[in-house]
Amino acid sequence: MASQSVLTPQAEDFPRWYQDVVAKAEMADNGPVRGTMVIRPYGYAIWERMQAAIDVRIKETGAQNAYFPLFIPQSYLSREAEHVEGFSPELAVVTHAGGEELAEPIVVRPTSETVIGEFMAKWIQSYRDLPLLLNQWANVVRWELRPRLFLRSSEFLWQEGHTAHASYEDAAAYALRIHLEVYNDFLEQVLAVPTFLGIKPPSERFAGALNTMTCEGMMRDGKALQMATSHELGQNFAKAFDIYYQNEDGQAALCYTTSWGASTRLVGGLIMAHGDDNGLVVPPRLAPIQAIVIAVRDEPLVNEACQRVVASLKGAGVRVQLDAGRGSFGRRLTDWEIKGVPLRVEVGPRDLAEGLVTLVRRDNAQKVPVLLDALADGVVESLESMQADMFEVARRRRDENTRDVKSVDEAVEAAQDGFARLAWELVEGPGEQRLKAEAITVRCLMRADGSMPASDTEEGLVCIVAKSY
Amino acid sequence: MASQSVLTPQAEDFPRWYQDVVAKAEMADNGPVRGTMVIRPYGYAIWERMQAAIDVRIKETGAQNAYFPLFIPQSYLSREAEHVEGFSPELAVVTHAGGEELAEPIVVRPTSETVIGEFMAKWIQSYRDLPLLLNQWANVVRWELRPRLFLRSSEFLWQEGHTAHASYEDAAAYALRIHLEVYNDFLEQVLAVPTFLGIKPPSERFAGALNTMTCEGMMRDGKALQMATSHELGQNFAKAFDIYYQNEDGQAALCYTTSWGASTRLVGGLIMAHGDDNGLVVPPRLAPIQAIVIAVRDEPLVNEACQRVVASLKGAGVRVQLDAGRGSFGRRLTDWEIKGVPLRVEVGPRDLAEGLVTLVRRDNAQKVPVLLDALADGVVESLESMQADMFEVARRRRDENTRDVKSVDEAVEAAQDGFARLAWELVEGPGEQRLKAEAITVRCLMRADGSMPASDTEEGLVCIVAKSY
Repeated sequence: MASQSVLTPQAEDFPRWYQDVVAKAEMADNGPVRGTMVIRPYGYAIWERMQAAIDVRIKETGAQNAYFPLFIPQSYLSREAEHVEGFSPELAVVTHAGGEELAEPIVVRPTSETVIGEFMAKWIQSYRDLPLLLNQWANVVRWELRPRLFLRSSEFLWQEGHTAHASYEDAAAYALRIHLEVYNDFLEQVLAVPTFLGIKPPSERFAGALNTMTCEGMMRDGKALQMATSHELGQNFAKAFDIYYQNEDGQAALCYTTSWGASTRLVGGLIMAHGDDNGLVVPPRLAPIQAIVIAVRDEPLVNEACQRVVASLKGAGVRVQLDAGRGSFGRRLTDWEIKGVPLRVEVGPRDLAEGLVTLVRRDNAQKVPVLLDALADGVVESLESMQADMFEVARRRRDENTRDVKSVDEAVEAAQDGFARLAWELVEGPGEQRLKAEAITVRCLMRADGSMPASDTEEGLVCIVAKSY
Repeated sequence: MASQSVLTPQAEDFPRWYQDVVAKAEMADNGPVRGTMVIRPYGYAIWERMQAAIDVRIKETGAQNAYFPLFIPQSYLSREAEHVEGFSPELAVVTHAGGEELAEPIVVRPTSETVIGEFMAKWIQSYRDLPLLLNQWANVVRWELRPRLFLRSSEFLWQEGHTAHASYEDAAAYALRIHLEVYNDFLEQVLAVPTFLGIKPPSERFAGALNTMTCEGMMRDGKALQMATSHELGQNFAKAFDIYYQNEDGQAALCYTTSWGASTRLVGGLIMAHGDDNGLVVPPRLAPIQAIVIAVRDEPLVNEACQRVVASLKGAGVRVQLDAGRGSFGRRLTDWEIKGVPLRVEVGPRDLAEGLVTLVRRDNAQKVPVLLDALADGVVESLESMQADMFEVARRRRDENTRDVKSVDEAVEAAQDGFARLAWELVEGPGEQRLKAEAITVRCLMRADGSMPASDTEEGLVCIVAKSY
């Protein structure tokens, strides 16, 4: 199993390890314009599978996909005061087009609340048009001074959902449904990442939101990553964009809107939540390649057996690829390990003589000989156990590294290599400032039993504090 | 079947009819920035199904998806002389970002040859890395002075494929494969649009290409629409971006590259190739909703039967939706007609009493009573025949409206409401100028037998000339 140490070990320098994995697994490259990103085929195949898993869940909630323009008139952003303040320093601005200077500068969308608000106002007439549930898959631009591939890039890919409702209750319930049935379900069932579900403190809310829900995952260095957020926008955007509807009594009433998004950041989260010193570890349900069939040597009997193995795994619905036996076996093992392919099926002449091949799991390096006849079943079972085990291991790691503390001082200490949990009343106000000075933030507020509070003003809330990406 | 005339008739004003359909079928709206487009849920659902059908075909040819940045340094475009000249007047330019004026202006990609060329040069080392077959789904921006929804918009969505090869022959063969197995197969099998396959005359080639292949479809007003193009770029971009590889003899050699794309224009093509005075007609294989089950009246027996019908059609793999019986039956019929849903299943109390429902085809208004027990089979069969019939009808229309002529004068006359086909040697040079003055262009060059020529210098070619979108 020993692989040449092509990656910086995590314990030595975690950010460096991350960069190494992104490069060596051929996930992404820096683009020519500062902060932009080239997503390479392997990284993009992972993103495509994330998209598909999230998209099907979004459609299950009744939302429909649409597409709104990349370009937004600059004046739109200033209609909602907090919104423009939140985004101004990050905007990219088009001043020339079609060979001329433009009369009004155009902003490249940092998010689409404003332009979608404009069209909701146009499309919504009566209560019968509500709720209006829209989603779009798109690129957005937020200028980054300290970019990092997938985690913070000047352009990133995401989905952004935008909905309008007749009542506050309906809007809040839908945003919560998205948070639980789309994001958290995807994170747990596909990405195998356990999260803390809570709401952001007022200081960390989305610009213009009344309430922001978040899924916070723990990375292998103990830092937090915000995996997805859902915002209750109240009537703020409805007011700014005149999103009215005629209610059953024939009166004009303001809508309540929500927005919610998850982005290519999730790829960074995948890498840091599961990766080890040998590279990426991709959960089987997500993996574009679930099993790599590796010919130990390039010889006819082996190649023939490999072809049969590939065919039988394809027949069993496994996403399988063949690595014919050219080049060093050790080098090839290392490459597939770095890419985090869940299962290796090693096909060699000695095993074959006994009707066997060797199955190796990427997550725990477990190596078992399997009869060729039983291989397809064995692979399907291994993929299922690996998916479950990865979630369980991540959950244990998260729980072991989340410490209950009784003061901000203790929280600062605990947050050096994990999460700290403490009463929100100990932190709110000066405590939050004290933490910020140590590069620690309040990741989320939860009820004492871990459930999602309706607002930050509830009594008895606890908070998770941590360093973060 | 009579519907209120909510659309301008095609014969009265075709462009107006097109606008009406786009608006009334809720396909798209104009965006707030001139020339941009909002694709509404129904239009986007159609585009998503086009994407899926094209994507699977692209992957079959061995290409992989990736993602390259929206922003390109302005200097990149000027490296290939013809390329910069072709695109300069259409560029949108970002001059400010992150609150500052940028040192070098950034161009919003009009296409990605240049930035992908840069990365191909980085990724390709030896002949073992070839061919490198990449595709991306992305938005691009080309400033439009006379925008039209789907057909010419300042921002549009597309896929752009970019490949690098060791030899001219390999590049040419791959570009041809894409043209036939991806584009033409999709157009014929899914969109039900017959095409003329040929190459562009030198005056109409992509900026920087040696050869541009095109699929030209005929719209219902007799004009042409370029549905997809594939370009042999020779070594032009390889030279400009230093895309070298080490060949088997250890020598550095320049690559040959190709690029190929299809865009949201295809949605415009769908509308104009099949639509009639009652609205869109969507071919069954493409349709997001293949059958709409319509309750004639809102009463318990009818609603119950509708539920059973929907369940049985879903079970048969049909993409089905329910229109419960609220509001005027006639109005609902008209709405589903405008949206071009292939089949209507009308469920009413009188039919039900005899165990029947009525099946209505959108393309030919054929109306047949079907026993409830036989409905699922009947629907599946009708969808198949409708798909085949739509192609056949479009093929006949195209052939009847393509006239063989013997002079440029005759071509001008024939091109007033159809295509003209004539010897290329009669057109090349002054003839082309003469046609242009009449707003007619050479759509493609073909061999006399209709097959694809390798270059415009072959002897005995014919050309298709037409007015176009």
